[in-house]
Amino acid sequence: MDTRSSRLRHIVNSPELSFLMEAHDGLSARIVEEAGFEGIWASGLAIAASHGVRDCNEASWTQTLECVEFMADAAGIPILVDGDTGHGNFNNVRRFVAKLEQRGAAGVCLEDKLFPKINSFVNGTGQELAAVDEFAGRIKAAKDAPRDDQFVIVARTEALVAGRGLAEALVRAEAYWRAGADAILIHSARTDASEVLEFKRLWGSTLPVVAVPTTYHCTPTDTFRAHGFSVLIWANHLLRSCITAMQATAAQLFTEQCLTNVESTVAPLREVFRLQRMAELKAAELKYLPQPVRPSDGDGTRDAVPEAVSVQ
Amino acid sequence: MDTRSSRLRHIVNSPELSFLMEAHDGLSARIVEEAGFEGIWASGLAIAASHGVRDCNEASWTQTLECVEFMADAAGIPILVDGDTGHGNFNNVRRFVAKLEQRGAAGVCLEDKLFPKINSFVNGTGQELAAVDEFAGRIKAAKDAPRDDQFVIVARTEALVAGRGLAEALVRAEAYWRAGADAILIHSARTDASEVLEFKRLWGSTLPVVAVPTTYHCTPTDTFRAHGFSVLIWANHLLRSCITAMQATAAQLFTEQCLTNVESTVAPLREVFRLQRMAELKAAELKYLPQPVRPSDGDGTRDAVPEAVSVQ
Amino acid sequence: MDTRSSRLRHIVNSPELSFLMEAHDGLSARIVEEAGFEGIWASGLAIAASHGVRDCNEASWTQTLECVEFMADAAGIPILVDGDTGHGNFNNVRRFVAKLEQRGAAGVCLEDKLFPKINSFVNGTGQELAAVDEFAGRIKAAKDAPRDDQFVIVARTEALVAGRGLAEALVRAEAYWRAGADAILIHSARTDASEVLEFKRLWGSTLPVVAVPTTYHCTPTDTFRAHGFSVLIWANHLLRSCITAMQATAAQLFTEQCLTNVESTVAPLREVFRLQRMAELKAAELKYLPQPVRPSDGDGTRDAVPEAVSVQ
Amino acid sequence: MDTRSSRLRHIVNSPELSFLMEAHDGLSARIVEEAGFEGIWASGLAIAASHGVRDCNEASWTQTLECVEFMADAAGIPILVDGDTGHGNFNNVRRFVAKLEQRGAAGVCLEDKLFPKINSFVNGTGQELAAVDEFAGRIKAAKDAPRDDQFVIVARTEALVAGRGLAEALVRAEAYWRAGADAILIHSARTDASEVLEFKRLWGSTLPVVAVPTTYHCTPTDTFRAHGFSVLIWANHLLRSCITAMQATAAQLFTEQCLTNVESTVAPLREVFRLQRMAELKAAELKYLPQPVRPSDGDGTRDAVPEAVSVQ
Repeated sequence: MDTRSSRLRHIVNSPELSFLMEAHDGLSARIVEEAGFEGIWASGLAIAASHGVRDCNEASWTQTLECVEFMADAAGIPILVDGDTGHGNFNNVRRFVAKLEQRGAAGVCLEDKLFPKINSFVNGTGQELAAVDEFAGRIKAAKDAPRDDQFVIVARTEALVAGRGLAEALVRAEAYWRAGADAILIHSARTDASEVLEFKRLWGSTLPVVAVPTTYHCTPTDTFRAHGFSVLIWANHLLRSCITAMQATAAQLFTEQCLTNVESTVAPLREVFRLQRMAELKAAELKYLPQPVRPSDGDGTRDAVPEAVSVQ
Repeated sequence: MDTRSSRLRHIVNSPELSFLMEAHDGLSARIVEEAGFEGIWASGLAIAASHGVRDCNEASWTQTLECVEFMADAAGIPILVDGDTGHGNFNNVRRFVAKLEQRGAAGVCLEDKLFPKINSFVNGTGQELAAVDEFAGRIKAAKDAPRDDQFVIVARTEALVAGRGLAEALVRAEAYWRAGADAILIHSARTDASEVLEFKRLWGSTLPVVAVPTTYHCTPTDTFRAHGFSVLIWANHLLRSCITAMQATAAQLFTEQCLTNVESTVAPLREVFRLQRMAELKAAELKYLPQPVRPSDGDGTRDAVPEAVSVQ
Repeated sequence: MDTRSSRLRHIVNSPELSFLMEAHDGLSARIVEEAGFEGIWASGLAIAASHGVRDCNEASWTQTLECVEFMADAAGIPILVDGDTGHGNFNNVRRFVAKLEQRGAAGVCLEDKLFPKINSFVNGTGQELAAVDEFAGRIKAAKDAPRDDQFVIVARTEALVAGRGLAEALVRAEAYWRAGADAILIHSARTDASEVLEFKRLWGSTLPVVAVPTTYHCTPTDTFRAHGFSVLIWANHLLRSCITAMQATAAQLFTEQCLTNVESTVAPLREVFRLQRMAELKAAELKYLPQPVRPSDGDGTRDAVPEAVSVQ
Repeated sequence: MDTRSSRLRHIVNSPELSFLMEAHDGLSARIVEEAGFEGIWASGLAIAASHGVRDCNEASWTQTLECVEFMADAAGIPILVDGDTGHGNFNNVRRFVAKLEQRGAAGVCLEDKLFPKINSFVNGTGQELAAVDEFAGRIKAAKDAPRDDQFVIVARTEALVAGRGLAEALVRAEAYWRAGADAILIHSARTDASEVLEFKRLWGSTLPVVAVPTTYHCTPTDTFRAHGFSVLIWANHLLRSCITAMQATAAQLFTEQCLTNVESTVAPLREVFRLQRMAELKAAELKYLPQPVRPSDGDGTRDAVPEAVSVQ
């Protein structure tokens, strides 16, 4: 059966390099889908930031879950959820994973740190790794939790981020593979990709490997392709584009105290309505609402606001 | 006592024209505050759109409430909440308003339509007005609900949007004033401000008047100032700037399959962390966490990712 | 495929009289299942009352949804959800129904009143009926919303409760049948069943008929059986048994200021743990947690609290 | 100012022995208040069990928070919330505590275990204690989080439950006192109170001491009074009385297939409505709804269902 989980599994397992684009709410998820991407990365950092909280489990796991649900409802492509540590021990993990599947996610990525986590790009306290066998137990629990065995479990090791070196990263990847992981995400906070590439060389093809070039963004994509990576994640760039745009728009409106110049730089209102699928609602009204004779409604277009209401 | 409600009340009552800037999540709320605005408009349209749903009460009132809570936690300036119809009758209104106050909002704007509402810029079914006395009862209930009598109740009439004309708008404004409203929001979906300005001329100064120049964005702000308006709302422009930015970034990444060119066009990761107030967390760790001797932590800066971790 | 929806459909369609027992949270749902019932009635009144709010949509539809989710997670038998009016118009209905199905409900009952509803046993304002064709549109939308076409839509008419008489009840039932309803719930607030029985006689067997003998509790069950009813709902009796029990226990503890006498009248702590399925957790720990040598743990029984920890 | 926090503080600090009664939802909270108790214990075990989940943080902290909110809305007396471990580290604690205060709780009890916790009466894995200084940091953070400095922080040590002995319990109590705790809860899973009493003797009066005689329920209350305890908590007995009552009612209805005999053993429907405060709603309708001439409504009593609708 063609489910979103099976489609994400295909993305992960296929020999070509694929790309997942970050989204953090229903709107961004729909934009990612419309841009043509095969799948979505529901970024923990971006979801936290858009809520105005920090990426150290300040939002509860059910608040994150609800955000994922809005994303899965807004876009039809598979969503790989950044599941942080799984929000506790094996028992929290299996509950979290079962709920993610219920709400329409296609897979989850779990990292070998302890709850509460702290973002991998923030230095200092909190980058401690979980014991290998304890985290392997979480992966095993995650594998057993979904109803659909196509649901994808990605094991992310923070061994390099924590400064433990390649050998430990490999040992951990092997343990997570044996525990049932479908892919390994090798994370690095360095500005060059060398340790990530070296990991891939040493690891080989036991399981597909995912990379997140946030800090080593200068590395050409063909390098990852040549090394046989499975998936690259553009992990937070829609959120960051929003920040730039909102700061500019807010500054301009604060200074100019007038909409006139801003109007042409932002999406028109009708584009908001189109993204919200207002046309589907108008069609549904015809189907489900009693239809009075309303000659003045015409084609549903309000004359005075042509740009606002064209909802096709 | 200087509360957010009393500050919003001052904004509404003061003779100068003030501006409220739309926000739709914690991040945008913080950006509005940093831009210097006195207050935030928690737009129903923008909140719905960012969730990926439509502005006709597809999200439940508690989901909207939770969004407002994240906004109030992320920004210290007053928030005027777009409360739609109040989500039902007088009883739903008083519950909704009490909860908005509990979560940190400073005021609510209620419109004289029936639940479920449909956005005022969408034509067709749904733009029916409530009976005047029924809606006046909702305003009265809203006034009685908060603990702090400084909490602001704005009554929005959709009489012009519904094509009922100025006379009805004025009758309704009068009824809502008598029911206890603190201000009148006169809404219009026309591309010129004439009917809004005419309303103000006829209404005078019985209560402060709020306008939303989304469709009549070409009207100079001094025109509203000259007519004695109290507040202008820039109602959805941060959301619309996000759409433009995300569509461009997603398209570029889809085409280029590489981060290199995008990196310089989006906010740096350290700006995400700054907006999340990571510096406060690092300071709190020093206060509340056992402090091991960690010479290598230095100033909290990870050498390899200087841009990511400077959290001041 | 044997789903909960198909099992509820079978219950509704089978010639024998079946019984649904009210539950209002995960615990009561599990108790209903353990008692042997075929299915659960997720009562709107009982859910509201247990939350401490009124049965007039004071809790949001997502708060009700979350309660249903806990119930569906706690019990494996089908749940028919008391969906009130569907929480708005056809559009709210289809969203609500799709979410109920997602969370594990097997069916929903919608009543032909307007949002916000008021409980049918409370007199006065609020017992107004929806227009027939508008409500038929809600039923149609409800039928189209679930993925699984076995999901059951019960149309409840309040025509008798609203004093509109049998003729209108029959007209409405017919309209809802044509709109796609799977069964008719004929509600009555009278202390005898005569009007309900008369409805069934006149209605015949076009669709299965459900009755709720809360007020006409003296009518022998064989009477309903003889009239060919499909389902009886015991609609609020677990909640009401809790009230009696809690008031007695609270009064006794307040007076006696001591647990000694209460202890033997309430379920032992180990029964709480059994209902929570602690044994499953202990088994899962063996499967997913690293197993240290812990000789002192023995069989998982703490000697000093034998009654508390026997989790089989 | 007389707040619920200051009232709970008074209960804890006063020389007389006080009693807190468990509640787990809005309904039980209201019943506790009506029974005359000074305050409510929002039991983690009871809240989890009523949701149908286990007492090991299977419900998220925001789900627990929402339950507390319904309780605080339903009852006016102070609520001491069973906060488990605080749901993570110091940072999770301060967020959790600030939110509890926002929703109307008067205090929180935090225990010196690690997230996720497991109920103290369940043997085996999971009863590990937190490091003293790490937990003291959580207490310190909890003290700094609320706006109202009357909000009560109770530090609960599980030293005895974990088999660490009296000396460690005393060391921990001292550390938590120095960190700012307002009271110490000394927990024990034994069937006699000896170790709890001995703790009190050795501890003296540095801070008020709270005990939970769930397992040592045979100890006369005067013994605690004589030892100078501040508060006793009846920790789960309303929940347990519900289980007994619901199992009996469900069994009876399953067997008898008829309401007749059950009707007299459960609270009447009008008692449900009274507990929901329907009379307040009817009064509010007179205040806020347009009042048509409705001669037939009379006193709001529906003739046919006198027991159901008398809402005074």
